[in-house]
Amino acid sequence: MAKDKKPPRPKAETPKGFRDDFGADVTERKAMLDTIADVYHRYGFDPLETSAVETLEALGKYLPDVDRPHAGVFAWQEDDEGDKGDWLALRYDLTAPLARVAAQYRNELAFPYRRYAMGPVWRNEKPGPGRYRQFYQCDADTVGAASVAADAEICAMLADTLEAVGITRGDYLIRVNNRKVLEGILDQVFGFGEGTEDAVLGAVYDREKYKDAILRTIDKFDKVGETGVRDLLGKGRLDASGAYIDGVGLAPHQADLVVGFLKSRGVSNQATIQQLSQLVGESRKGSDGVDELREIAALLHAQGYHEDRIVIDPSVVRGLGYYTGPVYEAELTFEILDDKGRPRQFGSVAGGGRYDDLVKRFTGQAVPATGVSIGVDRLLAALRAKGRIDGATARGPVVVTVMDRDRMADYQAMAAELRSEYIDPNDPSKGKIRAEVYLGNPKNFGNQLKYADRRGAPVAVIQGGDEKERGVVQIKDLILGAKIAESATLEEWKSQPAQFEVARGDMLAEVRRIIDGERS
Amino acid sequence: MAKDKKPPRPKAETPKGFRDDFGADVTERKAMLDTIADVYHRYGFDPLETSAVETLEALGKYLPDVDRPHAGVFAWQEDDEGDKGDWLALRYDLTAPLARVAAQYRNELAFPYRRYAMGPVWRNEKPGPGRYRQFYQCDADTVGAASVAADAEICAMLADTLEAVGITRGDYLIRVNNRKVLEGILDQVFGFGEGTEDAVLGAVYDREKYKDAILRTIDKFDKVGETGVRDLLGKGRLDASGAYIDGVGLAPHQADLVVGFLKSRGVSNQATIQQLSQLVGESRKGSDGVDELREIAALLHAQGYHEDRIVIDPSVVRGLGYYTGPVYEAELTFEILDDKGRPRQFGSVAGGGRYDDLVKRFTGQAVPATGVSIGVDRLLAALRAKGRIDGATARGPVVVTVMDRDRMADYQAMAAELRSEYIDPNDPSKGKIRAEVYLGNPKNFGNQLKYADRRGAPVAVIQGGDEKERGVVQIKDLILGAKIAESATLEEWKSQPAQFEVARGDMLAEVRRIIDGERS
Repeated sequence: MAKDKKPPRPKAETPKGFRDDFGADVTERKAMLDTIADVYHRYGFDPLETSAVETLEALGKYLPDVDRPHAGVFAWQEDDEGDKGDWLALRYDLTAPLARVAAQYRNELAFPYRRYAMGPVWRNEKPGPGRYRQFYQCDADTVGAASVAADAEICAMLADTLEAVGITRGDYLIRVNNRKVLEGILDQVFGFGEGTEDAVLGAVYDREKYKDAILRTIDKFDKVGETGVRDLLGKGRLDASGAYIDGVGLAPHQADLVVGFLKSRGVSNQATIQQLSQLVGESRKGSDGVDELREIAALLHAQGYHEDRIVIDPSVVRGLGYYTGPVYEAELTFEILDDKGRPRQFGSVAGGGRYDDLVKRFTGQAVPATGVSIGVDRLLAALRAKGRIDGATARGPVVVTVMDRDRMADYQAMAAELRSEYIDPNDPSKGKIRAEVYLGNPKNFGNQLKYADRRGAPVAVIQGGDEKERGVVQIKDLILGAKIAESATLEEWKSQPAQFEVARGDMLAEVRRIIDGERS
Repeated sequence: MAKDKKPPRPKAETPKGFRDDFGADVTERKAMLDTIADVYHRYGFDPLETSAVETLEALGKYLPDVDRPHAGVFAWQEDDEGDKGDWLALRYDLTAPLARVAAQYRNELAFPYRRYAMGPVWRNEKPGPGRYRQFYQCDADTVGAASVAADAEICAMLADTLEAVGITRGDYLIRVNNRKVLEGILDQVFGFGEGTEDAVLGAVYDREKYKDAILRTIDKFDKVGETGVRDLLGKGRLDASGAYIDGVGLAPHQADLVVGFLKSRGVSNQATIQQLSQLVGESRKGSDGVDELREIAALLHAQGYHEDRIVIDPSVVRGLGYYTGPVYEAELTFEILDDKGRPRQFGSVAGGGRYDDLVKRFTGQAVPATGVSIGVDRLLAALRAKGRIDGATARGPVVVTVMDRDRMADYQAMAAELRSEYIDPNDPSKGKIRAEVYLGNPKNFGNQLKYADRRGAPVAVIQGGDEKERGVVQIKDLILGAKIAESATLEEWKSQPAQFEVARGDMLAEVRRIIDGERS
């Protein structure tokens, strides 16, 4: 009866909101990250890998889009010092650790510091369908460059990166805006002229509150359209469910200014900039912002990044966040079918902007910084939707079956021979063969072939005592076999043309022929 | 005075026991992991990437070498369900998550399941010099293969892996032992014959306690030698500090048996196996273990892995752990200089073994499994010590300096031209140029050159208005410049042969010549 006292078995479950990635899902993401890293690296960005854990203090108590302290962060207290232990937390993005590093190593690093970072980040949020609590980010930032040439460079690099991973020119658009221009619009809306930053604290606070509410509303432009935004900026509106949504409370002529800003993308960057310039009027901050956009547009144009790839678009907001200058967003412009089979635009896969205050938190000194974050999983989904990821990477290894348990060394030697060969230096994927010996119980040969099928093996190699004596092996082309099984009649299937015998010495060449044939 | 009320600035500090990796440290580790993954993948192992977070329940409450529950793990309670939230924890190795996955997906995965995994793991330990609380592991395991062919395969793959990353044959040795043989020795020591597993619980418990103590003692063989181990197995001994260390309490003839086991490595695998066979006598478990070692040795020999690379060695213990059969360890046999300049053997860089009970925790069903873990950081340190890591990977980008702020687009175009070129498909490292424009304040030109130096730039490109008019650029060879600065007299230095002028159209060719020259 002692057995009954054993503790219950643990549940074998991925924790809620987390996931496990297998095989090709891992390989394909890795290949994409490698390609991105290669572009970043060539642009002079250096890799930085901080640990997953930061002090809660260094992380800051706020996620960019969350107002409650500590909300959204996995945190715990160090237990080795009684109740005085430091609070530690998992990073929620790659920008907060960068700000910490830029402050901590300010005397060691060469500034402007260009760095890239890729890795998982964690969010302590309620998990939901497709919403995970650990996901990849892939960032590039320049710290210490005040010039908007740094922003333009990152936009250009983002375009290069999207093309490098397989997004065709014409299938993406990078849209650029500037928070300073929005500040200029707010100057117009609230009638604050230059120098109002020194106004009574109350007034500044109100303006910030309005600004957040206005940003939130602008962010809904895609969803509710021009009329919707105008209503929400004013008194409010009934939403689709019949509920009344309170508005920001702007007067109609104020809302008009904001909507005008949103809609000011013209037929060309030049036209857009012209309109923005009029909208911000005498606002110093606003016209600084317009000048910056003009400089970015000129730099990109001179380098051949025209408006079909990177365009000035005042409707880009990029959440509330910490942005203080240019903001940019990459969207994929092709349509995919949604869950219900309706076509919809793929949407945003990357975004970023200038944030000049994050390092200041630590040192008191403002340090200009700008950077982009690529949504790795969304970009992967896009590449899969476009069929730009080669299914051959998902292919399993050649399986050498075991007919005679005592000849395991022979079978291992076959697998070693298959995997040892590299042929074509111009196309390393060719001739690079994965191979393994079946290591389960070999008694039931059918199980071995079932295993090969489940592994996605392209070929099974078979050599029983008879074949050994005659110096041959059986090669089973499982790719062809699967095609025949799909389409052929039972009669044809029985003739099994997908299995044939070759001399042992020809094994490698025959297997390679099958695998390279599939790849080409 | 409102400013005084601001909260104090956060400290910009890496949390204690964690670290930040920059530039080449990241790139070099990544290159090594890529090479290892490539070997694993060719052997038919599939990548698996589980999340960093597991339920504490699934992880198990014990680290392999720690007796206290929860000790050594970073854990926290989910706060969204009152005090009933699940306990979550950061994984402390890659084996526990694998056991969870093998149980959770037992109906979906094709067994034997070969998987590899690489990534950080976390230990909640007191940090010390060189001891970090986050570090990389790189594992390959086969789950569901009872045959020791799986163990032999992993040893062979480990040898291939070490050679692939740059450890020369002769510089490493993989030593293989078997826990079952030790059990056979214990059968001899305690006089337990076959079937004693069913003896009264008390007796079995005592044996397990002795076994742990004996394993701990054997583990000190390298440090205290044969006499030391004999004393510690018996009554105890004075250690170097003069303190008396209690012994395990075996009688001299019992200690002799254990020491005999330890020393039973013979001139050949055959001789070793012969000796072990005699030592375990009639013990069923012991002779099973000897048979397994014989089979492993035969398989490896047949595949060309001889005793200069993989050898049977009964002195390998591999901690206390959860091992139930073959255990293996890779050590590097060359000497390095320690902190005090004394030569010492580099030691172990990888190890593993068979653990048949980890999946059983979840399902109640025993699932055979075997696997290896490579100590990534130690292996990197070894490669650096042997000069096998190419310093050229640490090289910074070409820096295009800014002489005229208004011509930023020109400078960006130069950088784009430099980085766009790929020449030699047979050697992709050649002609692959990193390049960037200086994005700091360009006013002080000296700062730009200082920046290029700190970045490790091989070349600086300079084009002022005069050069622009004449259609030329200045190229400053900073590699040569550094060499001259080291060795030349002031007179020679002044002539600056490391800087020269070329036509703008020749810039790419000249820069490439300098960089490829360094690499070749």
